[in-house]
Amino acid sequence: MSTAVKISVIGAGSAQFSLGLVKDLCLIESLAGSHICFMDINQERLDMIHKLAMRYAAELGARLTMERTLERSVALRDADFVINTAAVKSHHHQRDVRELTAKHGYYYGGVHLGSYDQLQLMLDVARDMEKLCPDAWLIQSANPVFDGCTLMTRETGIKVCGLCHGHYGVYEIARTIGLEHLDRLTWQAPGFNHNIWLTHFIYEGKDAYPLIDEWIKTKGEEYWRTHVAVRTHDVQMSRGAVHEYRMYGVFPIGDTVRSGGWWYHTDIQTKKHWFGEPWGGPDTELARPLFVGNLETRIAEMTRLANDPKASLVEAFGNQKTREQQVPIIDGLVNDHEGQFQVNIPNHGALEGIPDDVVVEVPAIVNKKGIQAIHVGALPPKVMLEQILPDWLDMERNLLAFKTGDRSMLLWNALESHQTRSYDQAVAVLEDLLSMENNKNIAEYYKWPKNW
Amino acid sequence: MSTAVKISVIGAGSAQFSLGLVKDLCLIESLAGSHICFMDINQERLDMIHKLAMRYAAELGARLTMERTLERSVALRDADFVINTAAVKSHHHQRDVRELTAKHGYYYGGVHLGSYDQLQLMLDVARDMEKLCPDAWLIQSANPVFDGCTLMTRETGIKVCGLCHGHYGVYEIARTIGLEHLDRLTWQAPGFNHNIWLTHFIYEGKDAYPLIDEWIKTKGEEYWRTHVAVRTHDVQMSRGAVHEYRMYGVFPIGDTVRSGGWWYHTDIQTKKHWFGEPWGGPDTELARPLFVGNLETRIAEMTRLANDPKASLVEAFGNQKTREQQVPIIDGLVNDHEGQFQVNIPNHGALEGIPDDVVVEVPAIVNKKGIQAIHVGALPPKVMLEQILPDWLDMERNLLAFKTGDRSMLLWNALESHQTRSYDQAVAVLEDLLSMENNKNIAEYYKWPKNW
Repeated sequence: MSTAVKISVIGAGSAQFSLGLVKDLCLIESLAGSHICFMDINQERLDMIHKLAMRYAAELGARLTMERTLERSVALRDADFVINTAAVKSHHHQRDVRELTAKHGYYYGGVHLGSYDQLQLMLDVARDMEKLCPDAWLIQSANPVFDGCTLMTRETGIKVCGLCHGHYGVYEIARTIGLEHLDRLTWQAPGFNHNIWLTHFIYEGKDAYPLIDEWIKTKGEEYWRTHVAVRTHDVQMSRGAVHEYRMYGVFPIGDTVRSGGWWYHTDIQTKKHWFGEPWGGPDTELARPLFVGNLETRIAEMTRLANDPKASLVEAFGNQKTREQQVPIIDGLVNDHEGQFQVNIPNHGALEGIPDDVVVEVPAIVNKKGIQAIHVGALPPKVMLEQILPDWLDMERNLLAFKTGDRSMLLWNALESHQTRSYDQAVAVLEDLLSMENNKNIAEYYKWPKNW
Repeated sequence: MSTAVKISVIGAGSAQFSLGLVKDLCLIESLAGSHICFMDINQERLDMIHKLAMRYAAELGARLTMERTLERSVALRDADFVINTAAVKSHHHQRDVRELTAKHGYYYGGVHLGSYDQLQLMLDVARDMEKLCPDAWLIQSANPVFDGCTLMTRETGIKVCGLCHGHYGVYEIARTIGLEHLDRLTWQAPGFNHNIWLTHFIYEGKDAYPLIDEWIKTKGEEYWRTHVAVRTHDVQMSRGAVHEYRMYGVFPIGDTVRSGGWWYHTDIQTKKHWFGEPWGGPDTELARPLFVGNLETRIAEMTRLANDPKASLVEAFGNQKTREQQVPIIDGLVNDHEGQFQVNIPNHGALEGIPDDVVVEVPAIVNKKGIQAIHVGALPPKVMLEQILPDWLDMERNLLAFKTGDRSMLLWNALESHQTRSYDQAVAVLEDLLSMENNKNIAEYYKWPKNW
């Protein structure tokens, strides 16, 4: 079975994402004839990715058509799939925010304004889809996936599926503890996006959690003493991850490791203790410039290749499928090529103890019928009460603040940062954040309540 | 209608409580012939309260019989009502805890072990009741009412009703803003015990919230500058209470004012700013010794009167009913003398957004049929997300820790204190708290999880 569809990519200039998508689409036979529409507000990036994608497809002889546009409505009209990978504010703005909050005594992003811009963009996209392609699937690939997907599914009738890489962390556990045949692994790690916990870890038909425990006991200390991260996000087997496992009773997977409790994140020495050398995990003043620098290097390399008509793109980027789920999910939905994926969709009972209209990250069967969550049951009560449900309340507060424009909720959020030492400090940092030129729209939207 | 019942008081030696109960029982005609059983493990206090109660009743010619016992089973057997006012650990122990935690850098009780002893006692009482008086009502008057009543109603079949004084704070608001006829006030302030919020405030048929706003605007600053508390708990109209009203959109009532956010409670100067002179509210190193001293003075005076056969107790204690709800509720239940009360009972839909099996504080109609919650609907979403639901999770964690004996949950609780600055600090204070002679039972019960 083979079907041609229109796939639109919002924020197509992303260094992280579009090229992989193009590769997967070129390499899958059953979507031949499909049309990809790249949309971005950055003309230069848009031209570059469009040029690169056209050439890559031509080299492989893939039967795809492509266009580019600066207009969201052009991209959305009659789309079958919309992949939203757009980030409104730049890495540079995020750095400016960190520098400003540091002046108020906060370590590395210890206080923030919520995610107004991202939520507004997501909602705008979903609302436009209601008019221009009401039956299309929205695949949300930019953060915050948890908050944004919950917002869009509550406020619109659009079918939304959020995707993230974090769950692949489970294979890092398997590799590190020495399991050779990853295809013999069965696992489940449900929760919310960036807050997923390994409830089942079965290798060759047997519970393999004891193998994790054994590794920790016999090899953990040695690993933590000698392991040097090769990627900034290489924290899956860190001392911090194992401590979180001890605290909460189940192993944290992927980005989950990056939160877990304020005490892992107080300063660079503490970060290095828990998340290892040389960067102390991805969320430090050492790691972030490197990560952003790598993205910029990648963009520069992509630009160079796009402008060098003699370069072989297949040579540069390979001709292997990525591990991304976007294209296989599309294939499952349109061609009934059934598969199981880790998705973020409204709960409707899949994860016990979570309201139906909250988006959970769970495994799902995807086929022509749709994206159908597997009922995973309940997470253990300790991790529910200490990690999942507090995160649920954070998300609900973020959405309520977004909906009401109540500035006192931004203040409450600043006060609740564990790094805040006094009421006045929170008031001052909030005022400074809202005075940033780049945050003018947020300052205009959020007003003090009437009785203030 | 008049009915004789057996009322048993557990922890009868309480300075706070038993005398008021005796007064109310002596002064209500429709419970004539009732039997009061005083139970305490402190023989001296027990004898004193028994002697005092007997003499007071005799002076008034009240038709009550009384006994005292050191045995809980004697008190519970065939009781119709059990009033549990017992506190396991003394004010002196609490002071020792504060002194110990201060050495670790915590200001006034900024970290604690939860409420193991109180929960265990409550559960023991309720379980004994299942054997000895399964149809009796348990009126829980000692803290933690929220956690304890939820625990007992989940774990036993006993009918439980928790009571507290906090809601009377609404009359303090009315008096302070100059409402003359308190009998013309209609109000509602639902939530959890110590976490109730004024949703309705109606005076002479009209919304009176604008009168609060007007008072704040025209008289607030003057009041906060000049008002000197006469009781340590005199904080209902404090700057802190009004700030909480501004933050959460509804006025906090009674003990609710005493929490509201860590930033009100960082040190004595901050406390005085928010809760006024001379003590900065009831929860400070200045207020607490005075409060405990007053209780001790009261016990001493009661003991003196009990031992002075010539003293007139009616002269000493008056012959007016207290404002306590215990006796009127008993009267409503057994004599169908219907009334409306502020009670703590399992939710079953009365307060929207809260699970059925969580004990909420709501108004209820009490008559022969029972204690029947008034469906109060929903609290505003901001106060739900910032105050009510986080408190729900706190309670659930306290109960889960109590149930599982998982020491990592005590550690998590210590870490989550906003005053904790590092992981090591939490580990150290926890260790010291568990090493206290008086906390030996807690140290024995709570074990690290298997994978620690």
